[in-house]
Amino acid sequence: MSTGQEALFQKATQFITQYYKENNLQGLAERLEQVGSQIALRATYDLTEEELSFGAKLAWRNSNHCIGRLFWKSLKVRDRRTLHSAKDIFEDLLEHLEFGFNQGKIKSVISIYSSEGPSRFRIWNKQLIRYSGYLQEDDSIVGDPDSVEFTQICQNLGWSSKGTAFDVLPIVIQKNEETPEWFELPESLKFQIPLRHPDYPQLDELGLQWYALPVISDMRLEIGGQDFRCAPFHGWYMLTEIAVRNLGDEHRYNLIPKIAQKLGWDTSQNRKLWKDKGLLVLMEMVLSSFQSAGVTLVDHHTASQQFLEFCQIESQKGREVQADWSWIVPPTAGSTTGVFHREWPNEVHSPNFFYQKPKW
Amino acid sequence: MSTGQEALFQKATQFITQYYKENNLQGLAERLEQVGSQIALRATYDLTEEELSFGAKLAWRNSNHCIGRLFWKSLKVRDRRTLHSAKDIFEDLLEHLEFGFNQGKIKSVISIYSSEGPSRFRIWNKQLIRYSGYLQEDDSIVGDPDSVEFTQICQNLGWSSKGTAFDVLPIVIQKNEETPEWFELPESLKFQIPLRHPDYPQLDELGLQWYALPVISDMRLEIGGQDFRCAPFHGWYMLTEIAVRNLGDEHRYNLIPKIAQKLGWDTSQNRKLWKDKGLLVLMEMVLSSFQSAGVTLVDHHTASQQFLEFCQIESQKGREVQADWSWIVPPTAGSTTGVFHREWPNEVHSPNFFYQKPKW
Ligand code: HEM
Ligand code: HEM
Repeated sequence: MSTGQEALFQKATQFITQYYKENNLQGLAERLEQVGSQIALRATYDLTEEELSFGAKLAWRNSNHCIGRLFWKSLKVRDRRTLHSAKDIFEDLLEHLEFGFNQGKIKSVISIYSSEGPSRFRIWNKQLIRYSGYLQEDDSIVGDPDSVEFTQICQNLGWSSKGTAFDVLPIVIQKNEETPEWFELPESLKFQIPLRHPDYPQLDELGLQWYALPVISDMRLEIGGQDFRCAPFHGWYMLTEIAVRNLGDEHRYNLIPKIAQKLGWDTSQNRKLWKDKGLLVLMEMVLSSFQSAGVTLVDHHTASQQFLEFCQIESQKGREVQADWSWIVPPTAGSTTGVFHREWPNEVHSPNFFYQKPKW
Repeated sequence: MSTGQEALFQKATQFITQYYKENNLQGLAERLEQVGSQIALRATYDLTEEELSFGAKLAWRNSNHCIGRLFWKSLKVRDRRTLHSAKDIFEDLLEHLEFGFNQGKIKSVISIYSSEGPSRFRIWNKQLIRYSGYLQEDDSIVGDPDSVEFTQICQNLGWSSKGTAFDVLPIVIQKNEETPEWFELPESLKFQIPLRHPDYPQLDELGLQWYALPVISDMRLEIGGQDFRCAPFHGWYMLTEIAVRNLGDEHRYNLIPKIAQKLGWDTSQNRKLWKDKGLLVLMEMVLSSFQSAGVTLVDHHTASQQFLEFCQIESQKGREVQADWSWIVPPTAGSTTGVFHREWPNEVHSPNFFYQKPKW
């Protein structure tokens, strides 16, 4: 074996061993021998559907940035490594979305497509459902500032849109080095939630909305030395991701000044705490709108409790949780959540999800 | 020279060189020679008053946990290395407090007392002004839970108190290994601020207050290899330290449930966001009470802007700011402050302030 093959065999061995041990399975030695000969022969090996499924769950369990890991075992893993065209993948994604949304009672799902061998797929979008952003003549931005560059790319591919603040981008799928194909999602699978505040009807004029399903589609899943570069996954949203970061961040929708204006607040001085008040209004708005729509969403207090429960279970199993404090602690009211007062080692274990360079 | 002496000379050289360079002073070589012979002869050396003063400022500038560093140059350094009794130090501390409080327009001050040689002092308090805490029969705590142990120690030394939630502890000063002496602060130097909310008079019933001056008195100041273990310092408070952490933390005054009760909020579910609302009320209360009292206090938004200004100035000077993100980012509304969206290396440079083991 070359050094590359040996390195792969080592990673494969580590993962396969963990899979057999954690699940109390028989036949580890035979399986490792088989994997070894595959690697010696083909410089790669095949993960079984069961191995893939367990590997994806472990990748979630090992995600140092994720506060939602209590539910790692419940991940639904869709093995779709045999699909061979962009169109098939798009159609399969529609199924993924419908199944995962589950009429509002969201289930965590990952779909794994081929990204090695003769059919190598990449989804260009950051998330399957996400809003476009348009740079205006006066340098202002309509929509999501974080999408301006990708929106331009979609337009160059021939996509056109209404130009509103909440246009859902098309799904862009590339096979090998071919020109990518783009597909418009049907309205019924965009899962838009209009945002209304129970006490402030004047905020309706802002015409805000957000989508129910955060499907990350640009990360690399690594299991036992194998890369899955096209493996979109989702859980449900944590309140602060939408209300505090996406809607509140200055470099995103930057809505706090607009909320303040509609509610007649004095924003001339920091000490009026208008930003703190604005966050609260945005959170109330998102929470009550998701609730009215009957869509799963977790607040940061509950998510923190669930994460600490996860830590406790892991510790009972003799496993040390790895976590990145600065990602786990919610972006507001941090010190009122239990996670603020904890520390974790922050090593990156395998399997895991990694950033990868965009193809565009 | 012994290896100990050589290590000291190396640290001294580093600091003295920085002092001469940053201030464009002449005579570095002579000064280093002098320091070298002192160390060779006595295994220590004398910092001049000017060196001590600059060293203390640098220690502040190098404090990775501190968001208030823009003002490092304005630190008033009181060189009190010649005081030789606990009583003299206590009386000098009264001057420090009065001068630093400055009728509400707080000035940043450090007083440096002897902690090597024949008179080695330590102040046992965490802060010069801080509330006691009393464990009750039913395991509840009156006062500050973080002070329970130290309060017991003061009582063992003969101190007695009213047993309220806001008794200021005595100042406990130890010379060498002698029994420590304790001193009661005069009322006029406790700088108590009654806390009232402008819109919720019913919160007056809680009888809350806090002190104006956070004088940290248990850290070790290290300059050029020399330790100053008795060197209390203060700036002014940042809003969230009092409102969010001291009053809000569950393991401190834990006031959010009480606020919620007085204001008739539903606390049965996390998604009522009662903790987030409680933080806002506590912040408004502290802010407006300090303002009414005419006492300096900075909100977290302004402090973040000032810290970023500090970073910019440092970078213009060709110096790399070291900072601990998890301490710099405020404990609430983090992502609405600029510091949330930045990163810094977190090496500990000298001079600096360090934790040290309590003498009790
Ligand atoms: C079930 C509900 C879930 C919740 C409430 C949740 C919550 C979160 C939150 C709040 C973040 C930080 C996001 C940010 O600040 O940008 C995060 C990151 C992450 N989550 Fe989860 N998550 C859930 C499900 C999942 C699932 C199903 C997976 C994978 C199978 C996953 C993997 C990750 C990864 C890889 C990151 C890091 C993303 C990055 O670094 O940009 N999570 N999660
Ligand atoms: C002038 C106004 C100042 C402000 C607004 C300020 C703000 C802060 C804040 C918010 C913290 C974090 C406290 C915590 O979370 O417990 C902190 C820590 C710290 N500050 Fe400042 N500070 C100021 C002045 C000073 C001065 C004058 C010094 C020293 C000369 C100093 C040295 C430190 C040190 C050493 C820490 C870390 C304490 C620890 O690790 O427990 N600061 N500061």
